[in-house]
Amino acid sequence: MAEILKGKPVADAIKEDLIAKIAEYKEKGIVAKVAILRVGARPDDLSYETRVLKNCDAIGMESQVVALPEDCTQEEYLAAMKSLNDDPLVHGILAFRPLPKQIDASAAADAIAPEKDIDCMNPKTVSKLFFDDMSGNAPCTPEACIAILKHYGYDLKGKNVVIVNRSMVLGRPLSMLFLHEHSTVTVCHSRTKDLPSVTRNADIVVTGIGRARFFGPEYFSEKNTVIDVGINAKPEGDGICGDADFDKAEPIVSAITPVPGGVGTVTSMILLRHVVDGIARL
Amino acid sequence: MAEILKGKPVADAIKEDLIAKIAEYKEKGIVAKVAILRVGARPDDLSYETRVLKNCDAIGMESQVVALPEDCTQEEYLAAMKSLNDDPLVHGILAFRPLPKQIDASAAADAIAPEKDIDCMNPKTVSKLFFDDMSGNAPCTPEACIAILKHYGYDLKGKNVVIVNRSMVLGRPLSMLFLHEHSTVTVCHSRTKDLPSVTRNADIVVTGIGRARFFGPEYFSEKNTVIDVGINAKPEGDGICGDADFDKAEPIVSAITPVPGGVGTVTSMILLRHVVDGIARL
Repeated sequence: MAEILKGKPVADAIKEDLIAKIAEYKEKGIVAKVAILRVGARPDDLSYETRVLKNCDAIGMESQVVALPEDCTQEEYLAAMKSLNDDPLVHGILAFRPLPKQIDASAAADAIAPEKDIDCMNPKTVSKLFFDDMSGNAPCTPEACIAILKHYGYDLKGKNVVIVNRSMVLGRPLSMLFLHEHSTVTVCHSRTKDLPSVTRNADIVVTGIGRARFFGPEYFSEKNTVIDVGINAKPEGDGICGDADFDKAEPIVSAITPVPGGVGTVTSMILLRHVVDGIARL
Repeated sequence: MAEILKGKPVADAIKEDLIAKIAEYKEKGIVAKVAILRVGARPDDLSYETRVLKNCDAIGMESQVVALPEDCTQEEYLAAMKSLNDDPLVHGILAFRPLPKQIDASAAADAIAPEKDIDCMNPKTVSKLFFDDMSGNAPCTPEACIAILKHYGYDLKGKNVVIVNRSMVLGRPLSMLFLHEHSTVTVCHSRTKDLPSVTRNADIVVTGIGRARFFGPEYFSEKNTVIDVGINAKPEGDGICGDADFDKAEPIVSAITPVPGGVGTVTSMILLRHVVDGIARL
């Protein structure tokens, strides 16, 4: 029987902390505020936006959406970004990506003010993470993985961590965060040989390959604490499931995050924490 | 009996290639040129400078040293950098660090033009490496490790690589380069548990802890190819030695780089390769 590392208690703890801090700032006349910069109206963006706005409401944070038309020019986009950068009432900016092709992704990334960059978009923010400088913001999902482990009291020093993902949004930044915690970090991927023996021997396994229930019992041992970052449609129909085959892994491993109700639950609160942390930086 | 992976044949191959490319550019009226930006006259900087200038001479590359006084202001430093950035005859800039404290290291790093940044100083160059975008330059020592392995015909795909170093100049960038080569990468350090068993099980071991002959026979097996990045004073007196106890490791492992005559020999040629590669980017 594994310990189930649910996301909600972690998100709730962050939320409570944010509510208190936002109230404190309000007494000083500072109203925490996030701005969303969106181009067009992709359904993914809209549903993410709705969630962020709902979370803002729940913690007393102001929000503003700047929605540009799908065919806006790069100049218009950069001007909108600049006006959010320059707005002293905005403490964090979430700029949805990918952008339409008339807007250069690299110019957009350079344009966001590093001190308002809550989703690790600007190269300067990326570079800070790489240089173990924690004054910038890491991407939210990797940070949520660490937040869950810390919430449940895990000491990460010297732990053997295996991350099955080498992307720019998960595996690479997460490897930097675990190194910061003094873990020994192995990054695996599709070319890794004998992956089951690598994961079985890890203290902490992070799965992030985006394949429903890919990780069966042969990947796990009683040593494992499993952080499942996968969010996949259930093969049999309605609902979502993780990369780990939860029902088969749970009797074997020491601890595991559920999907839904695990990492994803925490990620959105991390984003808003970056906004509040940003107030002190401005 | 291990294969000895000497640096000289690798450096020579790069050198030959550079000589040919520089001659080709010369025919087109382009004279490859590197600029060194130095503040003060630290002995380390001067000896590095001498080596770079000597290597330039050997391959027909022009060079220029801009030496600022130890007490120069940040404005003077940034102005000197800008003039090298703007100089169309300069294709790469090597800016020595650390800088005296009146010059902000972060402002200096931001100031170097990314297309002339031959030593991975600008956050934009760092961020490219992190994002697996090989159009920037990696730091020279990590790149030398990869160059040696490739020169000697190693296929890195799926290989288990263990890097004993998590610094910004070696372990972290090198982990990105090995991920680019589709290796499975483990980054170890002083908090890693049972390091000997981790290194013994690796296909490739990179040692970079800066302790003379720290890695004795217990760290190695016949599976290992060892890339020794350590450059240490010999405990018994004159000369340098690596992090691996070469005489004890060599009979055990499959292949090993010597110190001296290994990675260090290649690093300086990588730097000049970045200058020549940069010509195409300008």
